[in-house]
Amino acid sequence: MKKIEHIGIAVSDLEAANRTYAAVMGKPHYKTEAVVSEGVNTSFFEVGESKIELLAATSADSAIAKSILKRGEGIHHIAFAVDDIEAEINRLKNEGFRLLNEQPKQGADNKLVAFMHPKDANGVLIELCQEIQ
Amino acid sequence: MKKIEHIGIAVSDLEAANRTYAAVMGKPHYKTEAVVSEGVNTSFFEVGESKIELLAATSADSAIAKSILKRGEGIHHIAFAVDDIEAEINRLKNEGFRLLNEQPKQGADNKLVAFMHPKDANGVLIELCQEIQ
Repeated sequence: MKKIEHIGIAVSDLEAANRTYAAVMGKPHYKTEAVVSEGVNTSFFEVGESKIELLAATSADSAIAKSILKRGEGIHHIAFAVDDIEAEINRLKNEGFRLLNEQPKQGADNKLVAFMHPKDANGVLIELCQEIQ
Repeated sequence: MKKIEHIGIAVSDLEAANRTYAAVMGKPHYKTEAVVSEGVNTSFFEVGESKIELLAATSADSAIAKSILKRGEGIHHIAFAVDDIEAEINRLKNEGFRLLNEQPKQGADNKLVAFMHPKDANGVLIELCQEIQ
């Protein structure tokens, strides 16, 4: 794992959360992106080498809608940047971890992504991210 | 906010979690520290310019014990590095945020710290950290 690529935060109202986090971070979000396949709208704030990603559901069956229903708003996942996501998936499987995606899929922000099973990591949902060249 | 200083993860068994996160991160923790005033033992993993901080309670009335009782293990807080914690507390108060600590207190890892009210930040517990010179 090279760095924290981003922290994903599940929010109910993206516009209101953009205002809140602009005030927290001391600067506005620098982009928004809809990820239709995941049923989410996202916005991004820069902080050092990492990002804060706000995620709001666009449909009731998106993972973010279900997460907010179950646990309320809050931190949804940590994403780590990796150089070679397939090698990292294999390394983690060999260590005994379960992956929610055995094959990387297209995520937000021009990334290939895969998620680990949170039950194998003390309740933390961990995402692996590889920049698409 | 300069960078993500660390992500704090509440765990039940620090030794077991150290083994899990050594496998996730691909390298062992580089230090442990007891914070007696907070009733926690901590361990730290480096990742880029940030850290993963595992937190295990040493007493039933520590905030980490209560958090695990209420929500289970998982991400407990995000900490952002700041240059001047008193200036940042004042900036955030002027923006309308409530601080859990109006005066910075001594935290782990040679830091002055203060926490923001999670209800003001979409359920996210945010810590400000200033390195003690």
